[in-house]
Amino acid sequence: MQPSTNNDSGIPNEFELIARLSELESAKNIAENIAAGNTILTGIGDDAAVVSTPASQMLMTTDAIVDGVHFRSADERWFDIGWKCAVSNLSDIAAMGGVPDYALVTLGVPPGASVKTYADFYDGMNAAFAEFGGAIVGGDVVSCPTMFVNIALTGHPSTDSLGEPTTMRRTEAQPGDLVCVTGPLGSSAGGFEALLRGDPNPSSDILIERHYHPSPRIEVGSKLVASGVRCAMDISDGLVGDLEKIAKSSRVNITIEMMNIPLATELISMFGSGAIELALSGGEDYELVFTASKPLVDNLVANKIGLTVIGSVDFSESPCGQVKIIDVNGDLYEPVRKGWDHLNV
Amino acid sequence: MQPSTNNDSGIPNEFELIARLSELESAKNIAENIAAGNTILTGIGDDAAVVSTPASQMLMTTDAIVDGVHFRSADERWFDIGWKCAVSNLSDIAAMGGVPDYALVTLGVPPGASVKTYADFYDGMNAAFAEFGGAIVGGDVVSCPTMFVNIALTGHPSTDSLGEPTTMRRTEAQPGDLVCVTGPLGSSAGGFEALLRGDPNPSSDILIERHYHPSPRIEVGSKLVASGVRCAMDISDGLVGDLEKIAKSSRVNITIEMMNIPLATELISMFGSGAIELALSGGEDYELVFTASKPLVDNLVANKIGLTVIGSVDFSESPCGQVKIIDVNGDLYEPVRKGWDHLNV
Repeated sequence: MQPSTNNDSGIPNEFELIARLSELESAKNIAENIAAGNTILTGIGDDAAVVSTPASQMLMTTDAIVDGVHFRSADERWFDIGWKCAVSNLSDIAAMGGVPDYALVTLGVPPGASVKTYADFYDGMNAAFAEFGGAIVGGDVVSCPTMFVNIALTGHPSTDSLGEPTTMRRTEAQPGDLVCVTGPLGSSAGGFEALLRGDPNPSSDILIERHYHPSPRIEVGSKLVASGVRCAMDISDGLVGDLEKIAKSSRVNITIEMMNIPLATELISMFGSGAIELALSGGEDYELVFTASKPLVDNLVANKIGLTVIGSVDFSESPCGQVKIIDVNGDLYEPVRKGWDHLNV
Repeated sequence: MQPSTNNDSGIPNEFELIARLSELESAKNIAENIAAGNTILTGIGDDAAVVSTPASQMLMTTDAIVDGVHFRSADERWFDIGWKCAVSNLSDIAAMGGVPDYALVTLGVPPGASVKTYADFYDGMNAAFAEFGGAIVGGDVVSCPTMFVNIALTGHPSTDSLGEPTTMRRTEAQPGDLVCVTGPLGSSAGGFEALLRGDPNPSSDILIERHYHPSPRIEVGSKLVASGVRCAMDISDGLVGDLEKIAKSSRVNITIEMMNIPLATELISMFGSGAIELALSGGEDYELVFTASKPLVDNLVANKIGLTVIGSVDFSESPCGQVKIIDVNGDLYEPVRKGWDHLNV
């Protein structure tokens, strides 16, 4: 679609932009993206969207990104930014083991914004929803000196082996559980570091791709629920910081074997021993970390669910909320940073 | 609760702020605000909130406010700003004739923000949800140079006279329908004008109160649905601009009798003949405008549902999307401005 404006500034006003975005949406037939069929009863263009509820329980999450904090508008990678914003929300649904349904998108639009920017941004979001589930059903557009985007996403729980809707919680880690991750860590952080260095090579290209196009673990999340896993979260802020949240919520302590943390070959070849720091503190790979009993983990492995055991939940419960990292020599390791704090960057 | 910080700057980091807000929430027992009982299965503190779905259909809306565009942080009226942000979302649910359920709140936090600010802001939001329905079940906190707040709110449809879930849409205006509003218009805009003038008097005090504490028409919205009304929206951007949206969506033309538009006594006493302009273009009274057949309107009046007939839907349908205003002499009246465009303020 050719963007156009009907005022002199070239900047669409709120109503024009909503109308244009509404056209973008309908042009893409986003309703078709929903597995459940014709569940969007009315979309953008009324006071509220009307949708059918696919289950008796609903998951709700929201995640915002801000120019200069979570992305750089100067890079003009609008498709990628849209993709990643959708993925950060999808990943929260994956972390509960849920299935994504409906998204509301709020755009904070700075002076001089172009429709093309937002068309590309929507393409990125829609591509992620098309691949992993969910669809945009409405939103808001507001003027803001700083560009921001907020997505609110609903989903519904997957079912357990008895067909009951079930979610994975941060509160359910049990002493003696093994701690597992669903894939290699640190690649996205490595890609970001590679971007800053600006020295292209095959390894950096792969890491940069991981940085721009992470995938939420929707499918494996559902499989974990069906298999009986009850404690998980997504690693969005960094392994250590996120594990501390599980430890605090579940009132347990956790010990991680540093040498067991899975790392991408490219991360090791590019960063050597620095790779482990990226894996410990780098978020945005959107892998899941979960805890489960040894028999259950054996069962997951037998069923070819990709996982790596990286540690265990301690039997000592007091004081709780601690995450210990043991290095290759059996010594305690102190990471340089634990995670990513959006208010202190 | 006494806010406190554990770093030197006095500014809580993201995790501290989330923890603090989580405490604020639980302290207020927001779950109790939901009429349906124990429907929040897990709230703030996991990857996603888990809630029960009260009906087979769901309404979804989102509305953001930005410092300097929709409010002025310098005024420090945090309770009022929180109230109004909740009301703007609640009003979208009211416009569909729905019942509010669950809210996700995203805070864009500027450097130097205090917990006290957000505690007051949450008090305002929670007060509105407590009075009109709905409850905060989760959210996100991000760093942003410009303060913003986004609320995403779900609801469920009211039922019609046969017990079927039914919503009011912008697309349902029929030629011959009467056009009605649920209360006086322009008071909020008059209050804003009074604030700018800074000349306190009893009239301005009442208008300023309307500006800071508008009410969403949740109850009357449900009654309209039950009575058979099928076309409505809330007046959030101004009567003329909002009626144009109905006219375009329904492919009809609308004629308004200017002298029939209800005005608050205080608005007339303070602004004289200027009151009508405030009523035509001022949004944020959050009254509903709806269309219905004459027999249905007679029935609503007989049932003591407060309304004022201000015009009618024309029988001529081409070209559609027009809103005509007829003045006291029967002449066409051109308003100075039609509404409020957040990207052009």
